[in-house]
This record gives sequence, C-alpha cells and structure tokens, in this order.
Amino acid sequence: MSTTRPVSRFPVPTLDALPDDVRTRILAVQEKSGFVPNVFLALAHRPDEFRAFFAYHDALMERPGNLTAADREMIVVATSGANSCQYCVVAHGAILRIRAKNPRVADQVAVNHRKAEITPRQRAMLDFAMKVALASGEIEDADFVPLREHGFTDADIWDIGAIAAFFAMSNRLANFASIPPNEEFYLMGRVPKAKPEAPKPSA
Amino acid sequence: MSTTRPVSRFPVPTLDALPDDVRTRILAVQEKSGFVPNVFLALAHRPDEFRAFFAYHDALMERPGNLTAADREMIVVATSGANSCQYCVVAHGAILRIRAKNPRVADQVAVNHRKAEITPRQRAMLDFAMKVALASGEIEDADFVPLREHGFTDADIWDIGAIAAFFAMSNRLANFASIPPNEEFYLMGRVPKAKPEAPKPSA
Amino acid sequence: MSTTRPVSRFPVPTLDALPDDVRTRILAVQEKSGFVPNVFLALAHRPDEFRAFFAYHDALMERPGNLTAADREMIVVATSGANSCQYCVVAHGAILRIRAKNPRVADQVAVNHRKAEITPRQRAMLDFAMKVALASGEIEDADFVPLREHGFTDADIWDIGAIAAFFAMSNRLANFASIPPNEEFYLMGRVPKAKPEAPKPSA
Amino acid sequence: MSTTRPVSRFPVPTLDALPDDVRTRILAVQEKSGFVPNVFLALAHRPDEFRAFFAYHDALMERPGNLTAADREMIVVATSGANSCQYCVVAHGAILRIRAKNPRVADQVAVNHRKAEITPRQRAMLDFAMKVALASGEIEDADFVPLREHGFTDADIWDIGAIAAFFAMSNRLANFASIPPNEEFYLMGRVPKAKPEAPKPSA
Amino acid sequence: MSTTRPVSRFPVPTLDALPDDVRTRILAVQEKSGFVPNVFLALAHRPDEFRAFFAYHDALMERPGNLTAADREMIVVATSGANSCQYCVVAHGAILRIRAKNPRVADQVAVNHRKAEITPRQRAMLDFAMKVALASGEIEDADFVPLREHGFTDADIWDIGAIAAFFAMSNRLANFASIPPNEEFYLMGRVPKAKPEAPKPSA
Amino acid sequence: MSTTRPVSRFPVPTLDALPDDVRTRILAVQEKSGFVPNVFLALAHRPDEFRAFFAYHDALMERPGNLTAADREMIVVATSGANSCQYCVVAHGAILRIRAKNPRVADQVAVNHRKAEITPRQRAMLDFAMKVALASGEIEDADFVPLREHGFTDADIWDIGAIAAFFAMSNRLANFASIPPNEEFYLMGRVPKAKPEAPKPSA
Repeated sequence: MSTTRPVSRFPVPTLDALPDDVRTRILAVQEKSGFVPNVFLALAHRPDEFRAFFAYHDALMERPGNLTAADREMIVVATSGANSCQYCVVAHGAILRIRAKNPRVADQVAVNHRKAEITPRQRAMLDFAMKVALASGEIEDADFVPLREHGFTDADIWDIGAIAAFFAMSNRLANFASIPPNEEFYLMGRVPKAKPEAPKPSA
Repeated sequence: MSTTRPVSRFPVPTLDALPDDVRTRILAVQEKSGFVPNVFLALAHRPDEFRAFFAYHDALMERPGNLTAADREMIVVATSGANSCQYCVVAHGAILRIRAKNPRVADQVAVNHRKAEITPRQRAMLDFAMKVALASGEIEDADFVPLREHGFTDADIWDIGAIAAFFAMSNRLANFASIPPNEEFYLMGRVPKAKPEAPKPSA
Repeated sequence: MSTTRPVSRFPVPTLDALPDDVRTRILAVQEKSGFVPNVFLALAHRPDEFRAFFAYHDALMERPGNLTAADREMIVVATSGANSCQYCVVAHGAILRIRAKNPRVADQVAVNHRKAEITPRQRAMLDFAMKVALASGEIEDADFVPLREHGFTDADIWDIGAIAAFFAMSNRLANFASIPPNEEFYLMGRVPKAKPEAPKPSA
Repeated sequence: MSTTRPVSRFPVPTLDALPDDVRTRILAVQEKSGFVPNVFLALAHRPDEFRAFFAYHDALMERPGNLTAADREMIVVATSGANSCQYCVVAHGAILRIRAKNPRVADQVAVNHRKAEITPRQRAMLDFAMKVALASGEIEDADFVPLREHGFTDADIWDIGAIAAFFAMSNRLANFASIPPNEEFYLMGRVPKAKPEAPKPSA
Repeated sequence: MSTTRPVSRFPVPTLDALPDDVRTRILAVQEKSGFVPNVFLALAHRPDEFRAFFAYHDALMERPGNLTAADREMIVVATSGANSCQYCVVAHGAILRIRAKNPRVADQVAVNHRKAEITPRQRAMLDFAMKVALASGEIEDADFVPLREHGFTDADIWDIGAIAAFFAMSNRLANFASIPPNEEFYLMGRVPKAKPEAPKPSA
Repeated sequence: MSTTRPVSRFPVPTLDALPDDVRTRILAVQEKSGFVPNVFLALAHRPDEFRAFFAYHDALMERPGNLTAADREMIVVATSGANSCQYCVVAHGAILRIRAKNPRVADQVAVNHRKAEITPRQRAMLDFAMKVALASGEIEDADFVPLREHGFTDADIWDIGAIAAFFAMSNRLANFASIPPNEEFYLMGRVPKAKPEAPKPSA
C-alpha cells in the first residue's frame, strides 16, 4: 500500500497468514497490476467471503455479453458516486478510463451521468442502473422500455441490474470498513502515453 | 411455486436444464423445506452468480459468532423493509419468526425497528445496520461507540455491516427481477403448534 | 391487552373512570372482537377526541360507496407502511386480510404496493393514496386522470384521499404515543379455517 | 367567497341543501367572522365528516390547558408550512397573528420556525411538532426530554402532538381538494388599529 | 432597524466606517424606502462582496426583457420558500406584492407555487426555477420544452435560471448569517390604499 | 475549447463582439493558463453578470485571511460534488490539486469529504460548508461551536459560508447552462513533474 491511511477499520492479516488460494489470488493481482488493491486486503480476514465476493465480481464483470468492459465499469462508477463510495469511484474510475480509452469519462459519470460524454444507449443503461442503486423498489415495467428500445436483451438488462446491485453491496462494505483507494489508482488511465494495465480481478 | 405470479421478470430454467450442483442444491432445499424459495429459481439462469450468491449468503448467515441466527435474520428484515423489498421481508420474516421463536418480531422490525420487542443490544445492532443500508457514506467512528458499549466485537460488527451490505444487493436483485415471496413463507412461524422448519440455505 | 409493552406513553384510564359512552363503545368492541384494540385505550384519556376520532373513522371506513371494505383497509395499510406506523400496519393488516379474504395482501402492500396481488384499479387507488400520504402538496389535476380512467367517481376519490389523510393523523398519534399492536392482530386472517371476525369499529 | 378560484375540486353544496346543524354552524361562523372560511364549504358535502372534523378541531384547539391559543396556532402554521398547505398557512396564519398579537410571527414560522421571534419554550414545542409532522416514526424517548425541561406536562405534550397530527390530516385534505384560502385571511391581524376578530371555530 | 433582533451573526459596521460608495448606496436606499433593508447592513462589512452582490442583483432584477418585475420577484419568493429563507421570503414578498399589484400572490407562491393565482406561463417559469433551486443537476433538454411552448426566449430562460441561482446564494448568506427581515416588509403591499414604494436596489 | 461538446446551452459570443474589459479579462486568462475556462465563455453573453460574477469570485477566493487557497478550493469541490456540478468539480478539482500540492484530495472530497486526507480543522470547515450547501435553513448557533474550537474567526467563518453560497449559485448556473469542463482541467495537478499553473481568476 502506498498510502499511509489504514487499509480498513477491521483487521488486515499478513499474507502468510492467509489460506493458499486467497494468498495466490492476491499475489497474482500484485504481479499483474504492480500493487494490491486495498479491497483484497480488507476482505482477506474473511476467506469465505473473500472467495464469494471475487467469484461474484468476476461472474458479473468478466462475463461475455453485449455490455463492453467499459459499460460495466461505467455502471460501477456512476452508482458508486451516488453511494458516496470513495474507494469504488477512484479504483473503478481508473479501470473505466483504461477500458473506455477515455481519460475524462470516469470523472464525469462519478459526478453526474446526465452530462457525460456517453452514447444515448449508455445513458439509458446508467438511468436504469441508478434506479436500481437508489430506488429499486420503484422499478416497474415502464423502466424496461427505454432499455429495449436501445436493443438491450434480457441478459444485458440482468447484467446492468446485477452489477448495480453487487456494487450496492461493495460500496457499503468499503464505506463501513473505510477502505481508502490505493494511491496508484488516481493517475491510471489519465496520461495517454503511459498505458498501465488495469488490475484483472479487482473490485 | 404455489403463487400464480411469475417467479421473475427474467428466464427461469427448468430443473433438468441446470448444472448438477445447482440442481442438487435446489433439490436439497426443496427436500428440507417442502418448497423451493423463488430466489433459487430466479438466480438459476446464472449458475456462476447462483453459486457465488449462496456461498456468500451462507458465509454470512451461518457463520459461528456472537450474533444469533435470530440477530442475523433481524438485520435482514429491518433493512429489507427500508429497501421496500417484499420478497426479503416476507421470506426472511418467516425465518426470523422461527429463529427468534417470536411470531411478532418480524412484522415489527419490518415496519419500524425502533418500536420492536427487542433488546437494547439488538436495537444498537439494527441502528448500525440501517445506517449501512441507508447512508453508508456517513458512517463515522462515532457510530461504532454504541456497538462497543453493548459488547460487540470487531468480528460482530463486520457481521452486522456485511449482512446489511449483502442484502442491499439481494433486495435490489429481488426488486428489479420482481421476485414474489412464495406463499408458504407468509404463515411460517406464526402458529405456535405447527413448527415448520426454516429452509436451510435460503435467501 | 395481551402484550406486556405499555399501551401508550400517555395515561391509560381504567374503564370505570371513563364516561359512559366511551366505556360502552370499548365494551362493545371487546364483546365483538374478544379484546380491546390498544388505540381505544390510548385515546380514552381524551373523551372528546376519542368520540371525534371514532366518529370520523366510521364515517370514512363504513360509508357505503364503490370502494369495498378491503379497498379502504388496503389504503390504510399501504400508507401506514410508508409512515412507519407499526400499530396501524399490524392492526389494519389483520382487518385487510379478513376483508379481502387474502392472507398475503396486507404483508405485500405494507412493504411495496407496486408488487402486490391487486388489480390495476387498486393500484391506481393506492398510487393516489400514497401521494396524499407523502407529497400532498404536489397533487395536480393530472393525478386524477388515472383514477377517472379506472371509473372512480368524485365521491370515490374523496374517499381515497380522505382515508389517506385520516390515517396520516392516526399514524402520527400512534407513533408519538408509541401504541403497540395487540398480540391478537398478528395472526388474524392468516389461517384459512380459523375465521376470527374483524373488530367492527377499530382503527 | 371573495376569491374567484373554486372552493374545492369536489362538489360544494348550497347552504339550503345542508343538514340543519351543518348549516347552523356555517351561519354562525359567517355571523362571527363576516365570511365563511372555505374549509367549511369544502367539507359540507360530507356532513358526518364535517361534524367529526370540527368536533375534533375544537377539542384540540379550544381545550383549556397550558398551551395558549397562540401556541396552538403556531403549531398549525409551522407544520402546515412544512406540508406545503397554502390554505392552512394563510388561514391559521391570520388567527395566529391575532392570538399572538404579533403581525410578524406567522410569516416567520411558516418559512422557518428556527428563526422566529418565539421563546425557547415555543421553539422546543415546535421542534417536537415538526418531528410529528415530518418523521413521526423516528420519535423516541429522547425527544420528550427538552419538552419536560421546559415544563411541558404529559397533557401539554399530547396537545402538541395531537395538533400536529390533526393538521397532518387537514393539510392533506386541503391539498388534494385544492381549497384556496379566503381573501379575507391575508390581511387579518396585520394592521394594528383594525382588530378583526378571529373566526371562532375555523380550521 | 425596527426589530430588536440582531441584523446578523457577523459584524455590522456603522455607516461612517464604510467606504463612500457603500455608504452612498445605503443612504440612497434609506432615502427611497424609508429604511435600510437588513441585507445591506449585513453585507457592509465586506465592501467588495457588497459591491459585487448588488451589481449582480441589479443586473438580473432590473434588466430589460420579457420577464416583468413581478415575474422576477415571484421567482425569488418561490425559491426562497423552498430554501427556508425567512429574510428573502418576507422582503421579496413585499416587493412582489407591489410589483404584481396583488396582495395575495407572495404568500401563495412562498408556500406552494402549484396553487398560486398565476398564469400557466408563470407556472412553467416557476417549475423551471424550482428545479434550478432544488435539483439543478437533473435539468435536461426536456425541461426547456414547456418554457419554449410558453414563448420564453433563450434570454428569458437565462434570466429565470440565473435569478434562481443568484438567490440560491442569497438565501444561504441570509440563512448562515441569520439576517432577519425588517419589520417594514411585513405589511408592504398588503393594504390597497397605502402604496409604499418598493425599495429600489434591494435584495 | 478543446472539447467538442458545446460550451453552453446559451449563446457564446465571439471574442471580438465582447466589451473591451470582458475580452481583456478573457485574453489574460488565456495568456496565463493556456486556455479559456468555459465558464468565462458561457457568461460572456451577459457582460454585467460576467463582471459581477468574477468580481464576487475574486473577492472570495483571493481575499487574504486564515483560509489557505487550498482550503477555499476544497470548499468549492466538496459542495460542487454535493450539487452534482461536473464543471465545478473538474475545474476546481484541478486548482485544488495544485494549491494543495496533493494529487488525490480533490477526487476524495468530491465523493465523500468524510473520508478525505484532510486535517480535523478542514473537516470541521467542510462540515459547515456542506450544511450551507445542503440545509442552510437548519444552521444554528451550535454549528458554529466546532468551528470556533478549531480557531476559526468570524471572518474565516464568513469566508467558508460565503464561498459555499457563491458556488451554490455557480453550480446552478453551470448545471442549467450545461457547461462542460475544459479537457485541460482533467489532468492538471496530477503529474508531479509537470506543474501547470492554475488559471488565476477562474471559476
């Protein structure tokens, strides 16, 4: 960790105290990204939850389908902004910049998705995701109409809703545990020449 | 399913179309409870998400610790009421009645946890869970003080927060997929003599 | 009273200290229902308010018209859920189950009327009632259009709005006085065989 | 009526079509005040509700006790402002000015009771009334402490809460029926010399 | 000042301690209106801000264009009510009554602009102004459609939005500094015969 | 402008159509910063408002006092995040990074000031600024206590409140005019070596 703020309000085990599979996954992320995103360390004290969290994350974020990787990250950043989750906005903002090859869009959707440089299709996607995040009990059949008009299939809509739902959880975990974003995330994907690779299975 | 409302807005596969482990789990629930809670059927079209969801659920709800099974279900019912999630209030209300051996407490916390027949310790637990559910970005060190005064450990507080966070996700899934509660849940745990067993790994 | 929680934060007179008409009404309810709903006891310390409250209640809830008794109770349960009034949700939930001959609908509308087993006409009725409960200052002519499309007359619409308004008052009384639901209400109308009669002039 | 806006969205009967007691009451108000406040006309199409409404109103607003008439009207104006009820703010604002012999206080509490020319005791009274109006489900024992510190008795606190609750109903009735304030109310109590008498049993 | 409440939580310089231009402006207002509106005194301790504030105010409120003086003041009163700013509601309510030659409209729009005696064109104007005041981040192209249907030009719409924005600032200044309305404002424009002149460059 | 999105929903005059002083100021900014921040262009169609806006801005942001330049920009970024103003978060985020010599703090306070790398004194400052931005009508004497405990003077507190108030206006202007941030702002102050100078009189 490159920041001096604690990684979590809760215990953070040392790597050698972890089960093999958890340690292996963390080392793989470190190998690939050059650092360990704090959410991996903050969840490591609960190996079963760690495994389920990342299995769920990968099932949603790496699933083949009509949503691009940038679309998926955009959902994360917009809803995490609405939930005031600093970790997720900064960490997934970095990944969004890289996936979208756009150094501005993450800062835009984090503050106000209505004013971002996105397509009308992405706008409809984010409108639905924001309603899942903020008022899911009010979702009605009418909310699916604009999605279908933009060609989203049932599978796509499930992806949009499920990603917004998963990060409703993730945002709350990061908020009550007070997980700070790693310093590395802030600059990733902002400078055109330097092309850092996004951490593979991050959250 | 004993209700005529659709199980989900999304596809519900037949049992024989499911991967073995998913089908096995569903049959085991049916064997134990006498019916299949709709959330199992609604998630089955996504086996990887199904596996991660129930692994996460079990890790949180069946974990040994200082929170009783009734405490955990109480967190679910209170936060699901706040999120207007009909499925989770009715299904987990049933389990709460059974676990707490109290036919009233679920209806009470679903509407207003401040007025429920619970201990001051449970009240502090629910106050924190509700803040995780509704305003997690505003959680501060001060919010941990009443929890510690009631003897909750770090591990207990993580459990409280993580259960509230997990059901923030679960509520949103049930809401956008429009999963109705099974008819069986409504009466479970209400009539003292008839003691139906709670479904083991339900959500 | 069958619960050990106090009936009110305020004084509860003994029956023999009450004016004759108030005592007579309370005994009649007890005769009919087998118990005295707590709201009767909580209001008894103010005989004039007691008389006006129940006169108003009966004028709205027992008035002949196009709204069924179940429709009227449904308005009460939905708006009382929105106002976090435990007494009214549980007590009128019992009456709704009996009037609607449906053991599920009260739990459904208390949590989320958008997902209840109700007709489109009832849905329009509850949408209007919820707006009266939660944002009456924003009601406009446009809000009357769906009601008229479902055939509601002026008299019906007044009934819907006035019931929502009356329970805006009743919910607040029960909340600041902290009136708990009687234990008897929780199970009423849930078990098909046992058909307890609803208390006649309850609130 | 001196304004050209309709008295209500609902039918307004002519005086001679009314039951004797209702017409007598309306004529008595007219005799005393010089005009008929619109709420009397708007409720007249429902004689039973009319009778219960004004019986309840009088029981709360004319009851002997430690709250002055100005205190009671101040609760009405503050909570009616919070509920965006134009009729009640303007009509009861007039009565408040007269009762308090203060031409400014009604305009002050209607906009922001925290900045009004009132005593600390009245401030505590209005804080409680506003919580009854806006968040009654969150009222706890702690909310009674400042009231008791200012010497309010149980009976006084019931009055405060019950007046706020009654006008939660009244505001909603006036809002969905769209009852405009009579023109006469706007100037009443503003000009020191002209001392118009407040309408006796108005709402 | 004719009220005994302090003019501000912050220092109020004496007139002779002010820069010439500031003192001159204040004396001119006093000459014209017969009193010094408190906002002039409350801002005087910061001459540069005083100059910019009133220059901005006059640029918006005295600009030639399709909005009448009454239209402009109506925007101020409606949005100031929404922001709970007692000073602005009372002071600009006075000016609105005079400009509109209507003793009722200020009290109406301060409480609920949806129920005021205004034209459909003014209603559209206030709907837009209220969205600028309360949810400016959600303004979209669709919000401009009703304005254009009522004939508002680009310049008019800028005026509406900019006035709502300027008073978003002014309301917050008056609220945190706790500036009370001058006593003179309460009665201005209410009594038809007495026609007090509105203060020219007030805020 | 380096972005292809329009600078405003409203007319943007060419430089040679502007009054001399307005054009001179714009050219000076361009000279200093290397580009013209869009807010200058978006306000230029209203020279009087342009002059007042920047005079006010400079009076608040460049005033000598105990608040550092970074403190002032931090207030802007935090409150602009709360108001969903993309332009102000991105533009002033750039200036904050430079003034604070901290490439992370702007992204932090824009999402959640409670979790930023700031001092307890800055935290108290932002708590007050956020209340001015979001609930100024509820500010009371008690809100000044923590500020004074951290040594803020009357002049400092006025600065905090007035900056939050000024950007309540600025955020609303940028939101209804839909002013996008210039592309240059996104990267400013993020890369340690490249030290772009902040635009002097920007907003």
